Amino acid sequence: MVNIAILGFGVVGSGTAEVLTENKKLIEAKLGTSINIKYILDLREFPDSPFGHLVIHDFNTILQDEEVSIVAEMMGGAHPAYDFSKAALEAKKNVVTSNKEVVATFGVELLEIAKKNNVRYMFEASVGGGIPIIRPIQNDLASNSIKSVSGILNGTTNYILTKMASEGADFSDVLAQAQKKGYAEANPTADIEGLDTARKIVILAALSYGKLLNPSHIYVEGITKITGEDFSIASKFGYSIKLIGYSKSFGDKILAMVSPRLVRFDNPLHNINDVFNGILIDADMLGEVMFYGRGAGKLPTASSVVSDIIDIIDAKKYNSKALGWTSASDSDMADFEKYSCRRMFIFDGNKSDVVSVFEGHRTGEFKEFGNKVAFISDELSEFEAKSKASACSAKLVSMLRLL
Amino acid sequence: MVNIAILGFGVVGSGTAEVLTENKKLIEAKLGTSINIKYILDLREFPDSPFGHLVIHDFNTILQDEEVSIVAEMMGGAHPAYDFSKAALEAKKNVVTSNKEVVATFGVELLEIAKKNNVRYMFEASVGGGIPIIRPIQNDLASNSIKSVSGILNGTTNYILTKMASEGADFSDVLAQAQKKGYAEANPTADIEGLDTARKIVILAALSYGKLLNPSHIYVEGITKITGEDFSIASKFGYSIKLIGYSKSFGDKILAMVSPRLVRFDNPLHNINDVFNGILIDADMLGEVMFYGRGAGKLPTASSVVSDIIDIIDAKKYNSKALGWTSASDSDMADFEKYSCRRMFIFDGNKSDVVSVFEGHRTGEFKEFGNKVAFISDELSEFEAKSKASACSAKLVSMLRLL
Repeated sequence: MVNIAILGFGVVGSGTAEVLTENKKLIEAKLGTSINIKYILDLREFPDSPFGHLVIHDFNTILQDEEVSIVAEMMGGAHPAYDFSKAALEAKKNVVTSNKEVVATFGVELLEIAKKNNVRYMFEASVGGGIPIIRPIQNDLASNSIKSVSGILNGTTNYILTKMASEGADFSDVLAQAQKKGYAEANPTADIEGLDTARKIVILAALSYGKLLNPSHIYVEGITKITGEDFSIASKFGYSIKLIGYSKSFGDKILAMVSPRLVRFDNPLHNINDVFNGILIDADMLGEVMFYGRGAGKLPTASSVVSDIIDIIDAKKYNSKALGWTSASDSDMADFEKYSCRRMFIFDGNKSDVVSVFEGHRTGEFKEFGNKVAFISDELSEFEAKSKASACSAKLVSMLRLL
Repeated sequence: MVNIAILGFGVVGSGTAEVLTENKKLIEAKLGTSINIKYILDLREFPDSPFGHLVIHDFNTILQDEEVSIVAEMMGGAHPAYDFSKAALEAKKNVVTSNKEVVATFGVELLEIAKKNNVRYMFEASVGGGIPIIRPIQNDLASNSIKSVSGILNGTTNYILTKMASEGADFSDVLAQAQKKGYAEANPTADIEGLDTARKIVILAALSYGKLLNPSHIYVEGITKITGEDFSIASKFGYSIKLIGYSKSFGDKILAMVSPRLVRFDNPLHNINDVFNGILIDADMLGEVMFYGRGAGKLPTASSVVSDIIDIIDAKKYNSKALGWTSASDSDMADFEKYSCRRMFIFDGNKSDVVSVFEGHRTGEFKEFGNKVAFISDELSEFEAKSKASACSAKLVSMLRLL
């Protein structure tokens, strides 16, 4: 029998208890062993829950119980989630988590402690909710060198952008709608400013390139400035607008960034709508492969937590495939100012002013929409794009990168 | 050092040698051991290949060489691929394969022999080419009960259907085009009549439900009867037409079938075009998850073969997660005649005749296109659909299932 302790009985924690109970027979038959939830750690009591009798308030009870071999941390926030995870690993307990903040910030240290103690630190649920992505990158793509990762990684912002596109509505109206429906939190900053996506893309970049970037050191741009006009003009050129976490290697340098980007109609990410997530990986042997599904939600995310638990039990012993990440230093980071891509520019002013600056740098027609002039540029670095835009006497209204 | 023998130096076989050579450093660093291709078995000689000196013609050399621990079978066809695989497993060698025909026909026996001999029989490359699908179903979805699997599993037919949709061209013209471009074989029967898809869907059904159906016992309908008119009318209702391998469990009965189906614009499979494959899984905890990528091709398929090789080396010992399939008997199969789904009907004749039969069984308007009458029905069993159609005095032109 394998004994598990759940830390945090919120949405994902209670979902994990539900998955383990609902599909107990199926899981135990696959593993050939029984699974027991021994403790649930939470500050609150849950007298009405069927799991209420398992709730305890002192983490030390779990830490000192040698029967507990797996700790599932689903508390959210950096502390005490990090501290409890570290203590559990040091006590030679395996830890699985859905906590992207802890993985993105303390992943290097926790993976190292896990390795030293011959246990595993696993986090399939930290990116893409229910979508299998961590394990497929680690196992299925193991014979590939990964060229780039592009992901729609945040359901809240994707829901907002989808509504803006389909209803022509303004950002603030759609945000208010999303909050009413429970798709956006009362304080939506981490989502709409791109921080949640930043944590997820540094985790995917570390899986791809072995080095964990600091999410607060990468370029992060949210969706608050996107307008209905951006959508209507982008669609005229054949693009939708998505918040994209993007990572790419340039030799031994790694680029990771978050920004709204134009996604062409024939890109598989183009049709990832509403709260769904999609992760597109370009690998040297495999080509493009995409993983799609529910990026959040109680049972999908819990399903990923339980897949890690099953993996630990099934492997029984320390898995040689355990990750070894190092912290990226500044010299590991590609220079963002030199990153080149195509862009959609929208200017307010005379077409001739825009043409005079960008004539040699466009890939399509200059199109006029009322007093606005829009076009798709060829590849320009961040630096070039900004200098050219400021050299133009027409007023820059919008500049959106293409994926 | 791990020694590998490659059986069959065709497209996938030579691709596997290429992946193992091209990404040798990366793979060996991950595994902490070196990999050596010791033999390549083929009837031909390859004097111009960098691997030409490894070519041998006698399988017994491989079988009797105790240094060879992994045999990669990429010969195609049932024999001698099955015989060599069986002999290798009995000699306690791990076998990986891209051969869907062998897996779909002899999978139960070969998995059993592998288990008995404490080695593994693996076939990630047999379905979806480069797309990770076998391992994700087995590992990542392990906490889920799978409700259904719907897949675009054959690149040739998807290329033909995509061209028919975009160019309004006829089946035979597009097939000829595809053959010229090398996307369809000179003898395309296995693809266009759905047999290739049938083999793949029984493999996915066995992974989902543990029982291997005989691909020649399931309902299989190809794409040869689809017309340009079907496409144009389907698009008026918001659907594209795709060749779908479909499997679903009904209690302890399993349904697997292959047929062209109407896929609605908001279904993630709707936009899987050209030679790409997509597999959509509906699981009880996870909800819908889709895997997308290149379903064929030298390096993508080889990449899947090598991911199995890496898995075997990494696990080092017999993996308890090894599959145990049983052969499905007729009583395990759901009754296809009772399978219910919505359908698009196209009749040639009077609208009033069609209305009189189907009035209570439609979910949208009856639409007229010249002298044709088309509509989308509500859920009808195979039996009901056929009886109603034959009760109608207008002539049935087309009846296509919705997904």
